[in-house]
Amino acid sequence: MKFIKNIQILVVAVLLVSVSCNAQSKTTSKKAKVQEHPSLILTKSGVEKIKAELGNVPLFDETLAKVKAEVDAEIANGIEVPVPKDYSGGYTHERHKRNFLILQKAGVLYQILDDEKYALYVKDMLFAYEKLYPTLPVHPQTRSYARGKLFWQCLNDSNWLVYVSQAYDCVYDFLTEKERKQLEKNLFKPYADFISKGNPQFFNRVHNHSTWGNVAVGMIALVMDDSELLNSALNGLKTDGIDPNAKDNDGGYIKKAGQKVGFLANVDEPFSPDGYYTEGPYYQRYAMYPFLVFAEALQNVKPEMKIFEYKNGVLLKSINTLLNLTDADGKFFPLNDGQKGMSYFSRELVTAVNVGYYFGGNQPELLSIAKEQGEVLLDETGLAIAIGIRDGLAKPFLKKSVEYTDGSKGTEGGVGILRAQGSKDELTLVSKYAAQGLSHGHYDKLSFSYYEGGNEVLQDYGLARFVNIQQKGGGNYLKENSTWAKQTIAHNTIVQNETSHFSGNFEIGSLNHSEKYLFDVSDANIQIVSAIENNAYPGTKLHRIQVLVKDESFENPYLLDIVTVNSDKENQYDLPYYFMGQVISTNFKYTAPKTLTQLGEKNGYQHLWTEGTGISDGTNAKLTWFNKERFYTLTSAVSEGDELIFARIGANDPDFNLRRDAGFIIRKKNQKDAVYVSVVESHGNYNPVSEIATNAFSSIKNVEVVYSDDAYIGVVIENLNNEKKLIVMSLKDASKKTAHKLKVNNMEYQWVGPYYNN
Amino acid sequence: MKFIKNIQILVVAVLLVSVSCNAQSKTTSKKAKVQEHPSLILTKSGVEKIKAELGNVPLFDETLAKVKAEVDAEIANGIEVPVPKDYSGGYTHERHKRNFLILQKAGVLYQILDDEKYALYVKDMLFAYEKLYPTLPVHPQTRSYARGKLFWQCLNDSNWLVYVSQAYDCVYDFLTEKERKQLEKNLFKPYADFISKGNPQFFNRVHNHSTWGNVAVGMIALVMDDSELLNSALNGLKTDGIDPNAKDNDGGYIKKAGQKVGFLANVDEPFSPDGYYTEGPYYQRYAMYPFLVFAEALQNVKPEMKIFEYKNGVLLKSINTLLNLTDADGKFFPLNDGQKGMSYFSRELVTAVNVGYYFGGNQPELLSIAKEQGEVLLDETGLAIAIGIRDGLAKPFLKKSVEYTDGSKGTEGGVGILRAQGSKDELTLVSKYAAQGLSHGHYDKLSFSYYEGGNEVLQDYGLARFVNIQQKGGGNYLKENSTWAKQTIAHNTIVQNETSHFSGNFEIGSLNHSEKYLFDVSDANIQIVSAIENNAYPGTKLHRIQVLVKDESFENPYLLDIVTVNSDKENQYDLPYYFMGQVISTNFKYTAPKTLTQLGEKNGYQHLWTEGTGISDGTNAKLTWFNKERFYTLTSAVSEGDELIFARIGANDPDFNLRRDAGFIIRKKNQKDAVYVSVVESHGNYNPVSEIATNAFSSIKNVEVVYSDDAYIGVVIENLNNEKKLIVMSLKDASKKTAHKLKVNNMEYQWVGPYYNN
Repeated sequence: MKFIKNIQILVVAVLLVSVSCNAQSKTTSKKAKVQEHPSLILTKSGVEKIKAELGNVPLFDETLAKVKAEVDAEIANGIEVPVPKDYSGGYTHERHKRNFLILQKAGVLYQILDDEKYALYVKDMLFAYEKLYPTLPVHPQTRSYARGKLFWQCLNDSNWLVYVSQAYDCVYDFLTEKERKQLEKNLFKPYADFISKGNPQFFNRVHNHSTWGNVAVGMIALVMDDSELLNSALNGLKTDGIDPNAKDNDGGYIKKAGQKVGFLANVDEPFSPDGYYTEGPYYQRYAMYPFLVFAEALQNVKPEMKIFEYKNGVLLKSINTLLNLTDADGKFFPLNDGQKGMSYFSRELVTAVNVGYYFGGNQPELLSIAKEQGEVLLDETGLAIAIGIRDGLAKPFLKKSVEYTDGSKGTEGGVGILRAQGSKDELTLVSKYAAQGLSHGHYDKLSFSYYEGGNEVLQDYGLARFVNIQQKGGGNYLKENSTWAKQTIAHNTIVQNETSHFSGNFEIGSLNHSEKYLFDVSDANIQIVSAIENNAYPGTKLHRIQVLVKDESFENPYLLDIVTVNSDKENQYDLPYYFMGQVISTNFKYTAPKTLTQLGEKNGYQHLWTEGTGISDGTNAKLTWFNKERFYTLTSAVSEGDELIFARIGANDPDFNLRRDAGFIIRKKNQKDAVYVSVVESHGNYNPVSEIATNAFSSIKNVEVVYSDDAYIGVVIENLNNEKKLIVMSLKDASKKTAHKLKVNNMEYQWVGPYYNN
Repeated sequence: MKFIKNIQILVVAVLLVSVSCNAQSKTTSKKAKVQEHPSLILTKSGVEKIKAELGNVPLFDETLAKVKAEVDAEIANGIEVPVPKDYSGGYTHERHKRNFLILQKAGVLYQILDDEKYALYVKDMLFAYEKLYPTLPVHPQTRSYARGKLFWQCLNDSNWLVYVSQAYDCVYDFLTEKERKQLEKNLFKPYADFISKGNPQFFNRVHNHSTWGNVAVGMIALVMDDSELLNSALNGLKTDGIDPNAKDNDGGYIKKAGQKVGFLANVDEPFSPDGYYTEGPYYQRYAMYPFLVFAEALQNVKPEMKIFEYKNGVLLKSINTLLNLTDADGKFFPLNDGQKGMSYFSRELVTAVNVGYYFGGNQPELLSIAKEQGEVLLDETGLAIAIGIRDGLAKPFLKKSVEYTDGSKGTEGGVGILRAQGSKDELTLVSKYAAQGLSHGHYDKLSFSYYEGGNEVLQDYGLARFVNIQQKGGGNYLKENSTWAKQTIAHNTIVQNETSHFSGNFEIGSLNHSEKYLFDVSDANIQIVSAIENNAYPGTKLHRIQVLVKDESFENPYLLDIVTVNSDKENQYDLPYYFMGQVISTNFKYTAPKTLTQLGEKNGYQHLWTEGTGISDGTNAKLTWFNKERFYTLTSAVSEGDELIFARIGANDPDFNLRRDAGFIIRKKNQKDAVYVSVVESHGNYNPVSEIATNAFSSIKNVEVVYSDDAYIGVVIENLNNEKKLIVMSLKDASKKTAHKLKVNNMEYQWVGPYYNN
């Protein structure tokens, strides 16, 4: 009996496959005439392929079952389309958000399962919106520079339309022409008009917000076959009357004079040729969904546009870039405004990985990410992924040391990532020398963060916001995001005279970027990233050199961090290290105050308590701390008189919006030029069950600057066995071909290329 | 070929089993005459049984392979017996510690594997010690009240002998009589004498230290068949000359006048009949190894003592007790001095579970713990466990709500644990109303901690120490352990007039204990623990009632916490809640100071910064916080004028020895009597990947004290649906039989038993 059943299934499968092939050929021949539906994400031929494989592709089937269960539960709950009232986190916001997510899924289920209850559900809800929408004024909450109608900002209204367009596409043929006309006239057209013509300051920009807006309009335009709307989506509104000095809620410019806008401009501008998105990975992740879902739709409906080849295929490239901007757990580096914890497990990255695999040449490495994600898109891209996994094609996604340029042409600095395997986990340096990053950028030129596996060793604070947690300012940006998180002192980089880079001025910051000096990972034992910043403080040149050194006499690779400062006048320089964990020991004296006062008055300093202050006697300053059962030591070559400051985040923070994390600041006063040289070791571990501490002490005996002038810096790192490593870096010539000759401590060294080491 | 080989193995196995049976019968007949070796932990017959099963019992075989690899690596490294110099964490300390652990294992390997290289290794190292020991003065580090020779304290010297006795027992027959005499004369006898007669202040006590000392002497006595030493071990030294006012480093009394000492007294005194060890679970864990390993040895060598039946079988009972004193991850509740993270994965608990299983009637629940532990003892107990697991006999170890009495007779208060399954994890209340707990006790009468799964919701701070992390005071107790961790304000309990219980006086504290009032878990929806403290503050009665309430209108069980205070004079009362995580919102106004000052001058208050202060307007005070992706809310019925204080640990902590954790304190001033009533909810969660916050708000509309006099307290908890739950508690009669009648808000309630609820 069972045997016979299997044969039957096989026969059915074969039949379906042949139907599917027929459907495909029909589709191709029909396309020129009338647009069929669905055609954006699901296509008629894709649906046939999917149906033919149902039951044969485990990950696809599992995802389908999960989505079905989720949608069925929502259908059982009934339709709720409340009058909009709340900010994010509140009931009406979350309800409408849930509605659009479920509508999209219900549409897909209708197509794949051929069950009309899903189409009916979509239809009923669309008509509920069709009834509500014309009655709505702008949203009652007033915080946004571009208020929506269903939501407090047009951004969320756009999210809605991006998803709902797909649902409409799926039930298009289920509806009568009259019904479609009614929906389009009362809901979709006015909806698209409101977020475009009705809000040019939102729609006509280069910004992740506008990307959503453009795509929302573009998606519904594709369903409705409305070429005028599509043109607006791709190229923006012809006229907008935007004041070139106007700014949004985050302090970003709305639009520079003469700037190109629309979807294509949003691909052109913020993406560098390497696929780095100037706002940073957190927002790249957010924008990925509209970018890719619209690209997929354009590819399906307007294949002649060859959207995936646009700008040298940057959209597909950006997927790999984004995946590489993660720690060992898949969490994005929180550059600029980024909420920690966001990772490639987000639904946007499921889309990115699926689309990237299908349209980008079936990279088997993406399959291993998809496997971790444990779900796929319910379309042809997801089917391809699931089949690839089923067929055992997955290969590990190995993250390598890599540099990503910033800027539309790749000429505005960038981000360098150095990775080296340690005894327990990978050590990862994220070095930032990019452009401002639009309104979500931080004033943190030459800043960095440092990881061991998924643990932060030296943190980037990220943003000051609890996304969608209503009690915290409606889940929106908190004022501490401006007063703390964006300020330079909140980052592991140089602050001059307690003032942020570019005086914290967005206009000036937006005109400038750091310059990459060197990114060289050709020697796995000496990986180097280096960049220069000339504009953060006019008259002052900052040059940072970071080297990830693999040396067998150490348990783990260590980080050598060098900053040279040259100024035309005397200044105070602060270099903070936001170490994660609890202080274990120091080798220097400091005093802890009886009362805590704020470290400074403004520019973020008002948010730091001074927990301790010491004055260096000129020998190395050593700080060992402990976090997640591991030890870390910072050893700094400091000068006599340098101030060594323990800081704690949390001053002037009456709502407890900031984390009470620690920082260590090396302060040099009244200096024109300064050199900071530090080594960061990860060493040993502590097991609270066996209570054994292993390798709890630093292995560094001494760090010394043995040479320093305008042209070279030389550093010697001596370990406990008195073995010395010399690293000399040319500061003026990063060419791999230049020959150098230098006398250091009476020894003459000759080499070719930007650095010497032994 | 393969088939034939299998048959051969079977034959060999059968032969081994029969040999083993023979050996056993021989052993039994021989025992009366000359003591054979090994006989303490491994026995001749046990070894034969083990050999017969080798290759057939996966977990045993895996453990054996691991131990063999570990010992082989040490043998390859060579023998190091350095001249003692360091505190714990330092090289000589850790080396000698490693030596005794490896010696014991090498002895076992010699017996099980019949490979003389292990016996030789033990022999060589023993003779290295035999050469070194006679040359040693007392240890150069002077901090201990009982300095050892190999280690800085006799305690560690005793650890050494407990393990090395086993190694000696294993190689006893491998050595010549001359060699044995030499070892015993130059090493073992003087060693045992030094830690007993040489240090009566260490040996003749009731304390975990002395247990180690007694057992060390007892173990070597059993190997050497030295009845005089054995008698000292079991019953202590006859004379000791200890001053009854003398104290140890932790501030504990050495010995009360006339107190019984020795191993048996150390079983009698600190264990309650329920198997609760008065110092708390962290130290019970530490003492478990010597208690059980010596009991096993006595059972093997002196079965006529029936040591496992001693005091109603308390040693075996204590194993289950200890396992129940853990959170969902197996971590011990850090009552008194306890280092967080210590768990039933420690080697001591492997011993406890193995011994408990073998000698305590093969409880199948212990097998599931052993499975988690993933290793077994290499003796008959471990073999039995591994066979049980292999044969699929394991059953889940279900932790239940349970009360453990404290005090040798079970009359000195206790610890009550309430557990209730929540939507995600179990909610666990640990309520402490025990005796002082010897020198490791904290001044925390009626304190509690609260867990959700393995996460702390309201923490017990634990100790102020980094065990074995040398940089932190040699890994020993830090001065903040006395100035902070032991003080009352460091705990979730009432502090009167900023003074610790018993004025922080150990002598007075040791004379007193709280009184259990009620422990009733007969109704799974209303589990209650309640206790009274009359002596912490003379003239003041403290009565705490804690109820874990399961109410279907809430997402999770919630905790109702009631404290009534009655005093003969006006006082200030502080009730802190050390919530773990970041503040999300409050419903009351407070001001955050521009500079942080310490909350008080002494008794632990000097370690708290005042981060915020509010004055209650008399409505409920509500505090919501966020930790590990979950929300928690404390709702307190407070009175107008009550002070609401945000505190942060870390003032006057120049070495960063304390964690910067938060606390919330409800302060009532100038009151004779006071009532504190609070509800703690766990609700909702936040997913940083989907960025969705679910159930982020408290479900409690109001908490009200509707009745309060000397005899009763009545509380109404109203949820957001206006549903009210009334709980009335008799404060004077906890009998289950008494009938009560009470008018509350003009309604008359009648019930039988200590409480009413609807």
